[in-house]
Amino acid sequence: MSDAKLQSVLSCLSQLGRQLDPLPSMTAPDANCIKLNTNENPFALPSPVMQSAVAALERQYLYPENDNIGLREAAAKAYDLSRDQVIAGNGSSELLGLIYRAFLAPGDTVAMMSPGFSFNRKLAALQDAKFLEIGCGELQSLPIEQLLFGPAKDAKFILLANPNNPTGTFVPIADIERLVAQSDRLIVVDEAYVDFAPDSALRLINRYSNLLLLRTFSKSYATAGIRVGFGLGHPEIIGRLRNIQNVFNMNVISHAVGVSIFSHRPAYEENHKHIRDERERVSATLTQLGFSVTPSQANFLLARVPAGRDGIWWQTSLERKKILVAVFPDKGLKDCIRVSIGTKAQMDAFFEAVNDILRAESSRASAVKPH
Amino acid sequence: MSDAKLQSVLSCLSQLGRQLDPLPSMTAPDANCIKLNTNENPFALPSPVMQSAVAALERQYLYPENDNIGLREAAAKAYDLSRDQVIAGNGSSELLGLIYRAFLAPGDTVAMMSPGFSFNRKLAALQDAKFLEIGCGELQSLPIEQLLFGPAKDAKFILLANPNNPTGTFVPIADIERLVAQSDRLIVVDEAYVDFAPDSALRLINRYSNLLLLRTFSKSYATAGIRVGFGLGHPEIIGRLRNIQNVFNMNVISHAVGVSIFSHRPAYEENHKHIRDERERVSATLTQLGFSVTPSQANFLLARVPAGRDGIWWQTSLERKKILVAVFPDKGLKDCIRVSIGTKAQMDAFFEAVNDILRAESSRASAVKPH
Repeated sequence: MSDAKLQSVLSCLSQLGRQLDPLPSMTAPDANCIKLNTNENPFALPSPVMQSAVAALERQYLYPENDNIGLREAAAKAYDLSRDQVIAGNGSSELLGLIYRAFLAPGDTVAMMSPGFSFNRKLAALQDAKFLEIGCGELQSLPIEQLLFGPAKDAKFILLANPNNPTGTFVPIADIERLVAQSDRLIVVDEAYVDFAPDSALRLINRYSNLLLLRTFSKSYATAGIRVGFGLGHPEIIGRLRNIQNVFNMNVISHAVGVSIFSHRPAYEENHKHIRDERERVSATLTQLGFSVTPSQANFLLARVPAGRDGIWWQTSLERKKILVAVFPDKGLKDCIRVSIGTKAQMDAFFEAVNDILRAESSRASAVKPH
Repeated sequence: MSDAKLQSVLSCLSQLGRQLDPLPSMTAPDANCIKLNTNENPFALPSPVMQSAVAALERQYLYPENDNIGLREAAAKAYDLSRDQVIAGNGSSELLGLIYRAFLAPGDTVAMMSPGFSFNRKLAALQDAKFLEIGCGELQSLPIEQLLFGPAKDAKFILLANPNNPTGTFVPIADIERLVAQSDRLIVVDEAYVDFAPDSALRLINRYSNLLLLRTFSKSYATAGIRVGFGLGHPEIIGRLRNIQNVFNMNVISHAVGVSIFSHRPAYEENHKHIRDERERVSATLTQLGFSVTPSQANFLLARVPAGRDGIWWQTSLERKKILVAVFPDKGLKDCIRVSIGTKAQMDAFFEAVNDILRAESSRASAVKPH
């Protein structure tokens, strides 16, 4: 830091480069834990998809196809769109980053339904933009007036997720249509969890040029580690995002897995049914154990913990028993944990841990009772 | 385009989003061609590396490790650096994009040794920055005075490749050290082709905080399709680039392949020897056929074509015979083609095509001669 040459180099940083400190290196998490904290879908690839991936490993020396053309064509066919309405991303997280860069200059505003995906806060900070959160709690309908005429009216775009994360709540597509029809701003709807939900806004894409849908294969197709996401929208907007996207943003495995999944979607029906069924079983069990569970249309549950302890206390207690769950700093969520729906065995281990913790709490409470 | 809602959305685009038109969709290239146009290394993965990749496909449902920590640690060990001196990228192309974003605001200048990697021109345009090319032709030493005191003195950073692309020329590391020592700007040295060259600037990293090296596994480790690249430099600079990098920028396969290659570098010695030997054979053969070949330390050759036709004519003629080579719009390169070094069979097919073309030219020339 006392290096004059370094100081001179750092003085050349742009606003973007200057506003963030160097990221400290993280440590790897404990690989022996049961991961119920990031909404992964812990099942293997269907065997034809696995075979496509292995075959792609033999084309490893060739650059990936330009512009993700084959993958975009497969997506267009599956979603009944043209390929110019599709952008493919290294996960939908890459696509979110492109949207922020394409639409936000320093000082601009972006609005997000809150609570929401916290990664958006960092993306706004990277653009030096104002991040406006429109509190919706666990509402199951959109506050359309507030979005159209409240402080969000100056936002360059509005972002919401449906089903929402971390609540799991789902708003009717008719609400989204009303918002998109009445707004002249870009409405970005993140449908990361849509395959666990009853409906989708896909049918609105050809009717409203200001709607941009995000999809990911991470959750419903069990490929968080492969990174396959899509943006679906008007060609004029999609084409601009593609033009600022980095070359070769996805590797040959992501392409092969993505294309193959589109050909084998029925192979996931059992998986999706398992998750929906297990979601109901976990919700019922947690309710019996004294948690208050928000009805969810996603592959996770937001559960308010029994009175007396907060979410972080539960997260820490569960982690001691090698079970990871998520907590959130958002207003109104400090008494909540978010639990991903995994295999039956994982959820049984989770119940056992919760029962152990509750029993220990109960003996502790008896022990301190006056005689 | 007559859609008022669309016009309203487009009016919200940032400078970045506005300055580029929508990218037209490309068409997929002919997969039956011999690709000698993008410097791929057409060999299979060593078998333990392939095994690591297949094993990683069974962790496909988990998010990739945060911050590329294991891959960065493997790179740090291999390069004798600390992990805080390493950033891992989805190819070095992703890392170039981060450097441009971190250092260039609209109106700033970046300088690149020219001819160079044309992708940099687009990256500068995305930042609305001035792209200054310092013409070096096929010189084998750096124009240090010109870089320090010429128009490049106002550049926020200076970019050069060693070996250079598309020339294949190599400048002594002593030249790079003199430049880095005398400059107080960031010097980015792209060493994409270093494993085919006699030396590297790696030993300078711990001595100069204003040096940033880029490495890629695309060329020397035959993984252009997997996307594995590295930036090596001072922790204060690397940490800032990591902080603006997108989460989960590499998938589990890229991680597994990258880590495994670091453990099996000797398995590539034969591959690198093949490419160096074949490079000499191709150079000698092309010279015999009337081409003028620039001495190369990379896995490609820049060859000036025989008088009478230009590079594009040769590219088109070779493409008709299912062989792809590269041409460049740069000043002084219009009579050149760039030929990647492939397998012996690929290069023999290339010679046959060149011979056919020369024979046809020769008969045409005889036919039009006056009797």
